[in-house]
Amino acid sequence: MGNLDSECRQKVTVPPSKPFLSSLKSSLKETFFPDDPLRQFKNQPPGRKLVLGLQYFVPILEWAPRYTFDFFKADVVAGITIATLAVPQGISYATLANLPPIIGLYSSFVPPLVYAMLGSSKDLAVGTVAVASLLIASMLGKEVNPNQNPKLYVQLALTSTFFAGLFQATLGFLRLGFIVDFLSHATIVGFMGGAATVVCLQQLKGILGLVHFTHATDLVSVMQSIITQTHQWRWESGVLGCCFLFLLTLTRYFSKRRAAFFWINAMAPLMSIILGSLLVYLTHAEKHGVQVIGYLKKGLNPPSLSELAFGSEYLMTTIKTGIITGVIALAEGIAVGRSFAMFKNYHIDGNKEMIAFGMMNIAGSCTSCYLTSGPFSRTAVNFNAGGKTAVSNIVMATAVMITLLFLTPLFYYTPLVVLSSIIIAAMLGLIDYEAAIHLWKVDKFDFVVCISSYLGVVFGSVEIGLVIAVVISLLRVVIFVARPRTCVLGNIPKTITYRSIDQYPLANRVAGILILQIDAPIYFANANYLRERISRWIDDEEDKLKSSEKIGLQYVILDMSAVGSIDTSGISVLEEVKRNIDTRGLKLVLANPRSEVMKKLDKSKFIEAIGQEWIYLTVAEAVGACNFMLHSCKPNSKAVDESTENDNNV
Amino acid sequence: MGNLDSECRQKVTVPPSKPFLSSLKSSLKETFFPDDPLRQFKNQPPGRKLVLGLQYFVPILEWAPRYTFDFFKADVVAGITIATLAVPQGISYATLANLPPIIGLYSSFVPPLVYAMLGSSKDLAVGTVAVASLLIASMLGKEVNPNQNPKLYVQLALTSTFFAGLFQATLGFLRLGFIVDFLSHATIVGFMGGAATVVCLQQLKGILGLVHFTHATDLVSVMQSIITQTHQWRWESGVLGCCFLFLLTLTRYFSKRRAAFFWINAMAPLMSIILGSLLVYLTHAEKHGVQVIGYLKKGLNPPSLSELAFGSEYLMTTIKTGIITGVIALAEGIAVGRSFAMFKNYHIDGNKEMIAFGMMNIAGSCTSCYLTSGPFSRTAVNFNAGGKTAVSNIVMATAVMITLLFLTPLFYYTPLVVLSSIIIAAMLGLIDYEAAIHLWKVDKFDFVVCISSYLGVVFGSVEIGLVIAVVISLLRVVIFVARPRTCVLGNIPKTITYRSIDQYPLANRVAGILILQIDAPIYFANANYLRERISRWIDDEEDKLKSSEKIGLQYVILDMSAVGSIDTSGISVLEEVKRNIDTRGLKLVLANPRSEVMKKLDKSKFIEAIGQEWIYLTVAEAVGACNFMLHSCKPNSKAVDESTENDNNV
Repeated sequence: MGNLDSECRQKVTVPPSKPFLSSLKSSLKETFFPDDPLRQFKNQPPGRKLVLGLQYFVPILEWAPRYTFDFFKADVVAGITIATLAVPQGISYATLANLPPIIGLYSSFVPPLVYAMLGSSKDLAVGTVAVASLLIASMLGKEVNPNQNPKLYVQLALTSTFFAGLFQATLGFLRLGFIVDFLSHATIVGFMGGAATVVCLQQLKGILGLVHFTHATDLVSVMQSIITQTHQWRWESGVLGCCFLFLLTLTRYFSKRRAAFFWINAMAPLMSIILGSLLVYLTHAEKHGVQVIGYLKKGLNPPSLSELAFGSEYLMTTIKTGIITGVIALAEGIAVGRSFAMFKNYHIDGNKEMIAFGMMNIAGSCTSCYLTSGPFSRTAVNFNAGGKTAVSNIVMATAVMITLLFLTPLFYYTPLVVLSSIIIAAMLGLIDYEAAIHLWKVDKFDFVVCISSYLGVVFGSVEIGLVIAVVISLLRVVIFVARPRTCVLGNIPKTITYRSIDQYPLANRVAGILILQIDAPIYFANANYLRERISRWIDDEEDKLKSSEKIGLQYVILDMSAVGSIDTSGISVLEEVKRNIDTRGLKLVLANPRSEVMKKLDKSKFIEAIGQEWIYLTVAEAVGACNFMLHSCKPNSKAVDESTENDNNV
Repeated sequence: MGNLDSECRQKVTVPPSKPFLSSLKSSLKETFFPDDPLRQFKNQPPGRKLVLGLQYFVPILEWAPRYTFDFFKADVVAGITIATLAVPQGISYATLANLPPIIGLYSSFVPPLVYAMLGSSKDLAVGTVAVASLLIASMLGKEVNPNQNPKLYVQLALTSTFFAGLFQATLGFLRLGFIVDFLSHATIVGFMGGAATVVCLQQLKGILGLVHFTHATDLVSVMQSIITQTHQWRWESGVLGCCFLFLLTLTRYFSKRRAAFFWINAMAPLMSIILGSLLVYLTHAEKHGVQVIGYLKKGLNPPSLSELAFGSEYLMTTIKTGIITGVIALAEGIAVGRSFAMFKNYHIDGNKEMIAFGMMNIAGSCTSCYLTSGPFSRTAVNFNAGGKTAVSNIVMATAVMITLLFLTPLFYYTPLVVLSSIIIAAMLGLIDYEAAIHLWKVDKFDFVVCISSYLGVVFGSVEIGLVIAVVISLLRVVIFVARPRTCVLGNIPKTITYRSIDQYPLANRVAGILILQIDAPIYFANANYLRERISRWIDDEEDKLKSSEKIGLQYVILDMSAVGSIDTSGISVLEEVKRNIDTRGLKLVLANPRSEVMKKLDKSKFIEAIGQEWIYLTVAEAVGACNFMLHSCKPNSKAVDESTENDNNV
């Protein structure tokens, strides 16, 4: 430790205090604009600023000028591929939401066009999503029976889509995108897996050809409902369903093993629909217990602004449904967009995406579409089919438009059981057991979060699972915050580095000095804990030294390197710690307090209380000074102060 | 930086993985038993363990054997002093809670005795508290009118006291004491100040002798109620009230300025009651619009177990009231206990205190007492009167017992207006504007929290203020957690220390190397933010270097010293950061990752991905290695790997 170089000791100074408004401005900026969206506007002429501003809010203006024919070819192929998936998925998920199948097709026409203008992802394929569809069915179904009052039910679904969009756009405009971050990855894995399980269970209705079915979504009710109706099972439907399910999972399995089979997997849902419809048409199975879609209206989305039921007695329900489904749809869509952006190494702006999602849902709710987002399956197909830009969404919308205008009658004979198979096949991919195993291996707590939200969804309901997931995630934040780590540091031999003696067993404790590192900002949520913990460290150290009869404890050095900030509760705890240490006849020394902390310690006179000369830049300097004192004089407050000054003046 | 000593470079190793159960055990222990209550039981014979265990749960067994006659003398003086305060305060706060005055006296008899057995504070004087009384009145008053249905109202108050006690004891047994820590100091200052303001406003009813008064507690309603009733004001009552208020504030003012006046202040409430009662008795003012307490039943607390209304339709209300008032009472009591323990330098165990509070309220609810806690005013008087142990509570209870048995008729003529004055005088002390000014000076955000909860209480209601305070406090935790600091490090000249260049302007950036320090654990709540922020730091650095035409950026060193832990979301963000840095043609280097982090990085194969040779113990070593590479060869992945190995083998 002879390295302590006291001639030119760099003092830890109190940084000049910034005016209140400028520090408020900078902290607000860091909170709400961490991505600094205005950086590209700096030092630009006003005309250029206008162009950049337009491009910022309508990203298509940014990339359209650079669009090439090669891109277009790739996008057409990808767009047609996702359209073959969009049509059956659209119909399937709409039936999952208890909505007329045609609304699922409408929802693949307008929203993708809006997203193509406003979205910043190049890969996201817009469409309806299973989990949100299920949530709509379960939340609105509690209030209005979709079979007895279909018109009102559709109105409520459109209204809640409107609120979902409004909420999403508002979050984006207020730059509160980080709220979505609070649904951790583990939560989403568990929640999605649970929802996929529940959706699969619901499809047993279609596969077994049951007419009556429970409205509850939990495992117990569904199994009860199925077992009590064994005499109602339709074997024709069941056999058909199992065959198609087998076919679909087989193609998925092969496409995963060999990239050449990708197209087979991408086309499989459409093929199933065509095959199923042909089979029913030829065998007239619809007369033998195989339910079919039936008549679908021809024509594009009818306007539905007048259908939005703002005056309805169920307004609160639609708002609640809108907010919850909106957040879920956002979380899924943004997570999917981000994952694919990561592959191609471009950047997605969460807040801009929220505005795009919100706009597309508001526009959708006025044109007979229900909630849309970026489903994983469709986006993955888009990515694998070689989609380059959001133009693939436009191509998909065009293909859906053609379907709506001319091809709807072809779906008359499509058996519902095929739709169920398509949904199950898609859902099986969402049960990400490998991710769960990975969580177990890497982080047990994350695994607990994941499995709790899974079980909450499967045995409770989608809402219960969501609440459990959010509560556990928040609880985790709270525990993270309330129980920060502290550790004892020791000297790594032959260096002036001090590290945790737990992590580096060869690090040596310094006789007579206890060096503690605090690993978190100190504030109200953990201040009391830290006080107890520090006093326990000192107790432990004193007990140990007492029994070993070596040199007694004289100094406590707090390494503040990791204390990024402190609040008034934290400061009063520091004061208490100092008083406690003084009473024991020891001396408190601080090492490397950060600027934010120094500022507040100064304002609250703590620096005066402890003495500027007891604050060091590094642990090594602090230890050097303490050692000097230990070996030259017995530390009592007066003598120590003088000798430090001497030390500094040497 | 020639100090890099590559011969004996201490490697950052992955710590041996602990079995799951033992790491779960240690983290549960750290979360729920940070004070390690079992440490004194270690290495003790079984008989001693039993004694220690009893002493742990019933602290009186611990200190009673050491009790001396000197202590007793001091405690008798202090006990009688607080009894003179307890009697008028008990009556006053009971009327504040719309309960019969006698219940206030009962509440100063049983609970102090229970606390004396179980409590770990030597200074806390037990009694009813103003804020909780007000809360009971406002929450129960919404359901049952205390004037129309006094019996039911008393039953509900006792039942909610029972639930408050049950909740408090449960929190203690489950060692969830840290929940109280989430009410930050700033929140409590604002909330208490607001509640005190509201209580003062309520007393205007008594001072002005009004009979009808609003049930709302907010400033606007109260002022409206007073202004519309100007013709109902009773000047006799008003004059009396103002005189006593003046007297009481005067004694308080003098006692603060000179310690010798302490006794005058302590006795002032009792003196006021005696003086007021005499005045009314002599002038028969009760016939001229001055309301008096009237008949008080003689005798000790009647048992009230049968009064607890568990079967009532208002059960939910009593549970809710119990939980909320219980938490508030706890927060106040524990804060008060801790403050005084700090003065005398002994330790208070939060969880044990909760059990003591819970037990005393459960016992209280069975003996006609309503919610009690440790009020600041009474405890301060106890402390200043020289109370040494909880025996002063026993003395107080004895004095109250004597009052109940023999002296209650003396209160017949006590005017209500004197009680109002006593309450107002006590409340004025709770409006801690000096603390608010201190908050403003030291931490603006804390000030905002404080003032919002104040305004919430004063202009909304006590519950609204509480909700605002809790929400803002939680929001603060969320923002703290979601927006950690990052900073660029530079070399402090003539040392191998690297520090933030914002804090130490003379620190020099190292050419070609960007050193970033992350100041928080990385996990789901801040992972996305950190990814954006790191990529922005790199953008900024590249822009800067591009314009200056110096050596380009080649290495990014992440100083992980302050990253105490990481979860799976954090790891995937690190992977993304690495991929992003790789794409830019740069190299990611880690410095000083902690053991927890190393463990998880290892399990998730991140260490393999980055290469063990790119992880250094200190920033200085990392910089040394990068510099070596920069000046010996152009960094491309292959060449760099080899040269590092050479570097290590030299």
